[in-house]
Amino acid sequence: MPKVVDRGERRRVLAEAVFAIIAARGLASVSLRDVAAEAGVSMGAVQHYFTTKDEMLHFALEHLRGRVLHRLQERVSRLKEPTRRDLIACGMECMLPLEEASRQEACVNVAFVELATVDASYATLLREGYRHLVDVSQAQLRAAAAAGELAPGIEPDDEAVALYFLAQGLIAPLLVGLLTPDQGRDILTRQLDRLFA
Amino acid sequence: MPKVVDRGERRRVLAEAVFAIIAARGLASVSLRDVAAEAGVSMGAVQHYFTTKDEMLHFALEHLRGRVLHRLQERVSRLKEPTRRDLIACGMECMLPLEEASRQEACVNVAFVELATVDASYATLLREGYRHLVDVSQAQLRAAAAAGELAPGIEPDDEAVALYFLAQGLIAPLLVGLLTPDQGRDILTRQLDRLFA
Repeated sequence: MPKVVDRGERRRVLAEAVFAIIAARGLASVSLRDVAAEAGVSMGAVQHYFTTKDEMLHFALEHLRGRVLHRLQERVSRLKEPTRRDLIACGMECMLPLEEASRQEACVNVAFVELATVDASYATLLREGYRHLVDVSQAQLRAAAAAGELAPGIEPDDEAVALYFLAQGLIAPLLVGLLTPDQGRDILTRQLDRLFA
Repeated sequence: MPKVVDRGERRRVLAEAVFAIIAARGLASVSLRDVAAEAGVSMGAVQHYFTTKDEMLHFALEHLRGRVLHRLQERVSRLKEPTRRDLIACGMECMLPLEEASRQEACVNVAFVELATVDASYATLLREGYRHLVDVSQAQLRAAAAAGELAPGIEPDDEAVALYFLAQGLIAPLLVGLLTPDQGRDILTRQLDRLFA
């Protein structure tokens, strides 16, 4: 394990090991033992930071969100004078597995959805995560509507929900190679063309 | 295991046991041993029909498609003089976890998406399945366009792709309880309202 400075950082390093295992071999392969091996530490070291596998996975899911948000902020900071539409497009594309980092995150997300179908505590976490992102999408489209940027007749709240879940629905076909990254982007672009004046 | 008549039927009974285990405890819990216990047969009996877990899961994925298609055909047969829009709505709703049977199918589907992220053979099967359903959706919307039933400016091929993957994207939020069944249906209905004249 690389030299790290605090408990939070050590836990994040272990969460990254969890992500690497999920993306390479699936959630079923994640055990404290495997995480220790992946991170190059002893099982005792992993148990020092996470008492149970569930505690580790809950933390990993939180870390996933932080990581996606951080990647989004980095991408947004590289945009020059972005319009509201640019920001919305950036947020939606950030969820899609279009590059190595986002592909790993999408694999991890799919694994947690599977876990959520049989464990209510993960369903609760995912529900809160979705709700937050739907809220953000709605706030963005409402702001665009208030600024007169949307096409006539576009209802921002409903369209934000549909846009967000369309993006979610593109994750699996991108992961299995039915859609190319360009095709995935194009599908979102056509929706934004329709929403914006 | 209920009294059954042929090899195909016996394999389907075992596939149903696989579904029950996935929906209740997740894909990680599926072993030949667990399937035998769920179906009330010996491990030897399961091994008589499936040599490996992979062979069993591949068969289960095929059976899943047959089961969804059968449910769709039953629902369509209950519609009285359905319009093209009714048929499309029925097909899209059939994919959503809005009732017990479709909830189980959605859980199984999510589990296979996770498996497909780490095993190319499942990715190939899912890709073919998605492609077929996208083709069907496009054929349906093209027929509606040819019959003059779509709103002005609606491009059937692109919209069919977006509609199909929007429906796919509603599966996880329905499974985790972010959306109610009515909300899920409403999101699709609004899209159909937009597409059809």
